[in-house]
Amino acid sequence: MAFIQTDTFTIRGYETDAFGRLSILALMNLMQESANRNAIDYGIGIDDLARQGYGWMLMRFRLRMHQYPRYGQTIRVITYPTSVEKYFIHRDFRVVADDDTLLADAASTWLVFSIDKRSMVPLPDFIRALAVPADISSLPRLSLKPDFQFSVAEPSHEKEVTVGWFSIDQNQHVNNVSYVEWLLEAVDKKRLETRELAEIDLVYRTETHWGDQLRIRSISEENETIIHRIDYSDESGKDVLLARSQWRIS
Amino acid sequence: MAFIQTDTFTIRGYETDAFGRLSILALMNLMQESANRNAIDYGIGIDDLARQGYGWMLMRFRLRMHQYPRYGQTIRVITYPTSVEKYFIHRDFRVVADDDTLLADAASTWLVFSIDKRSMVPLPDFIRALAVPADISSLPRLSLKPDFQFSVAEPSHEKEVTVGWFSIDQNQHVNNVSYVEWLLEAVDKKRLETRELAEIDLVYRTETHWGDQLRIRSISEENETIIHRIDYSDESGKDVLLARSQWRIS
Repeated sequence: MAFIQTDTFTIRGYETDAFGRLSILALMNLMQESANRNAIDYGIGIDDLARQGYGWMLMRFRLRMHQYPRYGQTIRVITYPTSVEKYFIHRDFRVVADDDTLLADAASTWLVFSIDKRSMVPLPDFIRALAVPADISSLPRLSLKPDFQFSVAEPSHEKEVTVGWFSIDQNQHVNNVSYVEWLLEAVDKKRLETRELAEIDLVYRTETHWGDQLRIRSISEENETIIHRIDYSDESGKDVLLARSQWRIS
Repeated sequence: MAFIQTDTFTIRGYETDAFGRLSILALMNLMQESANRNAIDYGIGIDDLARQGYGWMLMRFRLRMHQYPRYGQTIRVITYPTSVEKYFIHRDFRVVADDDTLLADAASTWLVFSIDKRSMVPLPDFIRALAVPADISSLPRLSLKPDFQFSVAEPSHEKEVTVGWFSIDQNQHVNNVSYVEWLLEAVDKKRLETRELAEIDLVYRTETHWGDQLRIRSISEENETIIHRIDYSDESGKDVLLARSQWRIS
């Protein structure tokens, strides 16, 4: 059986930013919540996987913001799996207003890891067997390799963060939204004051944990684009996240 | 006319901490949201005040956690003003479970500032005139001066933070919950892993803004108590917040 998840959320005050727009972090949290609920319907929720020694890991997420909702506005978040492969499951999101105006959409790719081995495994049969909804129009599937790179040459901005308690989720690793907070906090003040995020493309590489020391870097490019990279600041220098954000006048 | 605000919230995944308990930050955000809605009913919402050149400022907040709700649980947040004085308005909160079990409660004290002067003013007449609900049992009123002090002698923990974009609210100053995040992030790992917050008493002293440099300090005392202090790390050393947290085995 196939399931399409639809959740209705009314934007709360603390979910908005200094300009009264729905914050990207709050929106990503709501999308994550709807994805969780959809997974529970399918019998592939966090708890279902944990009981069999597995966990979900987000690998790619590309969010496009078409129009920002504001305080008190009611939105619907719609999400469903679009296809299942040997290693990956793809999930789309649509965020619409009361009158069905498309506010945002996102494509995402997920994989499953073994809790014991802490490494990626082929999707277990009970996940591979799931039925995706029929007659859905899916967003273009994300490639496994991003079509952008972080050239280490000259980052325009660099800072370090220590992973704190409030970034840790029930999987005991950093939640996907905390990384976005760190990289958006590193964006220059003028851009945050005069622009809005139009699109963000995220490539998750490694999980991180409470107390880890991370380095957040970014390079401003032409056409209102920033390339972001997060890695471990210890000698391993292990890659954590690569991202590209695109901005427009707000 | 008097208004009692009651909001029903179902705990979302990202509102819980690494142990699956409702996070204190998420709870404070929900309480703030209910207070906003109650203020709107009274015609004293943020926008109502802003139109007349005023803003709300939280002065004291004492939260007691009796029992932590968990993912998927539905809670009711109930809030109403309990009394109005020349300079202060007092507001209580109760958080209850489906079966009316008391999960948390809080007393709070608010003042009004002039946006132009950036300083406290006597409550304008349209606020002073409001009717508090009859037949309510209010929590003990908070004193203007806290019954604890931060002795500057030897802080057990000290760190600095720079106020970031996501801590700024529509009043263009740091939202009340961000301070709590900073001071709880400074609590030692062992306590966070083995204890839960039983009570937190917050005394807000000055507003802060985007880019400000703050110093977060704490002193661990006997009986599972921590005294916290936030001040400006520049030469002004101006006081921002004083707090006391009490912990218990979880």
